[in-house]
Amino acid sequence: MAEYEIVFLPDGKKIKVPSGTDVLSAALKAGVFLVSSCGGKGICGRCKVKIISGDFISEPTGKISSDEKKSNIYLACQTFVKGNMKAEILPQSRLPESSSVVLFEKSEELKHFEIPVPEGFDFSPLTEKIFLDLPHPSLQDNISDLGRILRALQDKEIRNTEIDLSLIRKIPQVLRESNWQITATFVRINKKEKITGIEPGNTSHRNFGIAIDIGTTTIVVSLIDLKNGKTIGTEISLNRQATHGDDIISRIVYAEDKEGLEQMHHLVVETINETIQTLATKYKVHHDEITAGVCSGNMTMIHLLLKIDPSFLRREPYIPAANYFPAVNAIEVGIRINPAGVLYIVGGVSSYVGGDITSGVLISGIFQHKELQMLIDIGTNGEIVLGNKDWLICCSASAGPAFEGSGVKDGMRAITGAVRSFRIVKPDQVKYSVVGNVAPIGICGSGYVEILAELFSSGIIDRSGNLVEKGERVRYGSDGMEFVIAYKNETGHGKDIVITQIDIENLLRAKAAIFAGIRSLVARMDIKLSEIERFCIGGGFGNYLNIDKSITIGLLPDLPVEKFIFMGNTSLAGARVLLISATARSMAEEITRKMTYLELSMENSYMEEYLSALFVPHTSEELFPTVFKGR
Amino acid sequence: MAEYEIVFLPDGKKIKVPSGTDVLSAALKAGVFLVSSCGGKGICGRCKVKIISGDFISEPTGKISSDEKKSNIYLACQTFVKGNMKAEILPQSRLPESSSVVLFEKSEELKHFEIPVPEGFDFSPLTEKIFLDLPHPSLQDNISDLGRILRALQDKEIRNTEIDLSLIRKIPQVLRESNWQITATFVRINKKEKITGIEPGNTSHRNFGIAIDIGTTTIVVSLIDLKNGKTIGTEISLNRQATHGDDIISRIVYAEDKEGLEQMHHLVVETINETIQTLATKYKVHHDEITAGVCSGNMTMIHLLLKIDPSFLRREPYIPAANYFPAVNAIEVGIRINPAGVLYIVGGVSSYVGGDITSGVLISGIFQHKELQMLIDIGTNGEIVLGNKDWLICCSASAGPAFEGSGVKDGMRAITGAVRSFRIVKPDQVKYSVVGNVAPIGICGSGYVEILAELFSSGIIDRSGNLVEKGERVRYGSDGMEFVIAYKNETGHGKDIVITQIDIENLLRAKAAIFAGIRSLVARMDIKLSEIERFCIGGGFGNYLNIDKSITIGLLPDLPVEKFIFMGNTSLAGARVLLISATARSMAEEITRKMTYLELSMENSYMEEYLSALFVPHTSEELFPTVFKGR
Repeated sequence: MAEYEIVFLPDGKKIKVPSGTDVLSAALKAGVFLVSSCGGKGICGRCKVKIISGDFISEPTGKISSDEKKSNIYLACQTFVKGNMKAEILPQSRLPESSSVVLFEKSEELKHFEIPVPEGFDFSPLTEKIFLDLPHPSLQDNISDLGRILRALQDKEIRNTEIDLSLIRKIPQVLRESNWQITATFVRINKKEKITGIEPGNTSHRNFGIAIDIGTTTIVVSLIDLKNGKTIGTEISLNRQATHGDDIISRIVYAEDKEGLEQMHHLVVETINETIQTLATKYKVHHDEITAGVCSGNMTMIHLLLKIDPSFLRREPYIPAANYFPAVNAIEVGIRINPAGVLYIVGGVSSYVGGDITSGVLISGIFQHKELQMLIDIGTNGEIVLGNKDWLICCSASAGPAFEGSGVKDGMRAITGAVRSFRIVKPDQVKYSVVGNVAPIGICGSGYVEILAELFSSGIIDRSGNLVEKGERVRYGSDGMEFVIAYKNETGHGKDIVITQIDIENLLRAKAAIFAGIRSLVARMDIKLSEIERFCIGGGFGNYLNIDKSITIGLLPDLPVEKFIFMGNTSLAGARVLLISATARSMAEEITRKMTYLELSMENSYMEEYLSALFVPHTSEELFPTVFKGR
Repeated sequence: MAEYEIVFLPDGKKIKVPSGTDVLSAALKAGVFLVSSCGGKGICGRCKVKIISGDFISEPTGKISSDEKKSNIYLACQTFVKGNMKAEILPQSRLPESSSVVLFEKSEELKHFEIPVPEGFDFSPLTEKIFLDLPHPSLQDNISDLGRILRALQDKEIRNTEIDLSLIRKIPQVLRESNWQITATFVRINKKEKITGIEPGNTSHRNFGIAIDIGTTTIVVSLIDLKNGKTIGTEISLNRQATHGDDIISRIVYAEDKEGLEQMHHLVVETINETIQTLATKYKVHHDEITAGVCSGNMTMIHLLLKIDPSFLRREPYIPAANYFPAVNAIEVGIRINPAGVLYIVGGVSSYVGGDITSGVLISGIFQHKELQMLIDIGTNGEIVLGNKDWLICCSASAGPAFEGSGVKDGMRAITGAVRSFRIVKPDQVKYSVVGNVAPIGICGSGYVEILAELFSSGIIDRSGNLVEKGERVRYGSDGMEFVIAYKNETGHGKDIVITQIDIENLLRAKAAIFAGIRSLVARMDIKLSEIERFCIGGGFGNYLNIDKSITIGLLPDLPVEKFIFMGNTSLAGARVLLISATARSMAEEITRKMTYLELSMENSYMEEYLSALFVPHTSEELFPTVFKGR
């Protein structure tokens, strides 16, 4: 088949592809990453490129305006190569790279990531380095090289140490080159110790680890000094798998054949490796000095990371291959730290309650106290955990990605340019704040919560969420009724930013799913919501979520605001604690053993609860007394 | 550089090699294995080939007779390629292959290998297979695939089971293809269990293991049914490393660079794999059905098997890389059984007391009884263990390979054609028996013991081992004084078989080293030889060694014959027991922990003992009362 070259601007990256290849796939092959929420189905309209020159065929799509058409703008996923081409990636279509991303203002970022290590955790990092100054062998003392090392470790109370053959092979050389002064790295796992490295000289002051939160959207990596447990730095990247769709289901579908799985695995590993690279360069740490990592993520992300077929996660009855994972060598997974470095994978409970939630439970301390607490992690799925030191129950409510900016017209992630809070000051006059204090280009989840609440409080939408025609910002647009959040003269891209009637319905479905999940757990345990002492909010909303407004729209239960606490990125915080504490590691294993999973689709009450929660705030006024009294 | 082709007859195997390559190396490259006791140094004179045609240069050597020269016979290692060649391998120069080897008469072979499993060992093979008929998953029972398997194993009291990532990756597919009926293989090691295989259907009735004795000279493999511990069959091969020299030191020297190590590793693995192949074909067992193996051998063989640099084994102060080895996956070593199959490596004590001796101690039961016992394993090194249930001490006496047929003019291994016993019937008239009842072509170790004893008893050699000129069989040959064992008209190759004065000196040095080792151990523990209740004889001599004659020449101490017991191939027997019993495995580990190594070169008395033992039987008449009284 004929092959043609495509040049992608502004990078200038080139690739040869067979005739008929779509431009989105070609870009991926060339290492140019585009936003593609729907995974190349032509639905989301995000992967826009400007064709500068060349032969191509493009499928007609409603996602390209006539102005765009005139400027030769097309959807990359619907445009097929027929000759050599030049295509320019539009700024908003580009998947931001690690180094160029500023997800949050610095101060808030720190608050978000730097959850302190809870008390009661001992300091015993996953790996340790010990310097050994060994006596030289002699005819009087001629035990084996390995025996000499083990004897010295025993003198330091490290016993029954295991070691792999591949490392034994290196020992004779290293011992003699180093004049019998070596540093041994060993890993502590499952109540046993294993030597994973023998280096010449004393390198014991240089031992680092990484805590990795593998989210569907973002990947966050912290570099930790394992000598003292302190975080040296944290970097965030967008998960490059996003090129094959924003949501979990698109990712699973893509990975159902072997090649797709290989690619998904490769993309997440590549994202992690580049993020590590950024940290390593910034803080002058060599990859080989990073001897341990902890990966916390949802079940799908962990399956893809480990290159395990995720197909059955999405098919009834929703079965993960495993929910406990053995510690693996970094090299087995392809993570670029010390090749013998160990990766600890946080275990989960079910297909939709993964290691990220285990981390959340660990960090929130729910499992340690007598009082009832609830953890709510709002994302594409709303994972909810209820319990105390005696029991834990959890569920996963399928909210959809609306609060993450997907499936809503001007939705975007909580990155620079996103409207994150919103007020209606007086009729037709609004005020909003934007992440990064720039002109807005879209709306993120916390922005939508506030918009919905304000529209409801101002009577612009009714209890069913219908836009009531009132005021100049309500109008009829290309997708039906809409409310203008920002006019094009205020925005960063020169186009109006709106919330449509369809958006509102999607958002209501998302909040209803989560609230119904909360209610189902409580009903199943036969308790009252008011008996819960504390609600820990985790997940993508971070510290932006306005509790008051969340109650107003019926996303969270109508309880005193003091009962709600933001936990920030508990997945990352959990990974960090697991990296530095053996107590935390046994606690995490206990949590996964203890936690019962409630399959919502098997709960008769769930659908009823969901339907009741589709209203603002809810069909039951009793459930939201303060909202109806006027907050 | 010019390349030329060599054709090796009678096989017809061909190889292209650069000009100047020696014919021995070329043969090895072509997969034609020659005997080369000295490892290609031109000293042993064994690698004879007949050059049929072609250009070559051959170094002059005293190892080729003028008759041989006329027949175009040369030493392969001293002959260098200068053009295309045809060379015929002489039958006696060929390293016998697995299938064609008959090392012992069948009945004796069986006696030699089939040491029964000692009592007191439980039956708990290294690997077990369990059939699991799993309940199908449902929304009510949606634990993970791995969780489902572990739960079923727990119902069978198998808990805390580990598993590798690579196997987790296969689980979803296998479970669904097999309709949830699977066979799990798990390995029992270090007090924990690990799943190493998941197969569709019920294969639990087919589970096999191999016990491997890796000797410097021979490799013996037994195929064991792990359902009942029974030996199905045993095959013997000559270790192909012999192409690079008979003795341990040549092998180590050859393996001191990376390429040499790679080659030595490859040769031993290849020998083992072909022996396994023979067994698999003969007994209709598939490689994948062999899920476990135990390897017992001396330290050098184990280092080479595991591709660990053996350099420091031979250099003072003689340090092995390790004397404990972790269990490894068969695929890591290249042994062709089930790739996930486990290999258990028997640990040793020092560079010259390896896992083969641990096996010997295990099988002899020395470590279990109150009475003092001694294990003597005669080979290139004489390894000697003394002890009882409270203590164990061992040493290794460097005897040299004379008793193994190397470094003695007509020496050979105990294979078909070897003189294995010998009598002087009346002056000038002798009687001998030959392995395989064929015409003799050489003399093996047990033959030499009897020859020395008879020559001494008949007064043909004196107490210093000097041939006294007496009778027609004593004559002056090309290597000095010699005694004719068999004239050319009786032999298989038409040449006289002799023992030379130099041979006698080599043999006396060998027996002196061993006896001095025995004496040193006893002296160190401050006991008398007569306090030892039982002497267990292991190693290459097998059941051929004549105890009476061994005492006559001063190889074994002068004690009642009933105190000596032949143990046969204890290395193989140990491997077999270790394969089928967890008790044996913990005992072996206890033995290596408990056994003290005595470095003979550090013992002041050793050299004195050695010098005294260079005589026949010894300088001290008191030590050998029955010999001097006339036996």
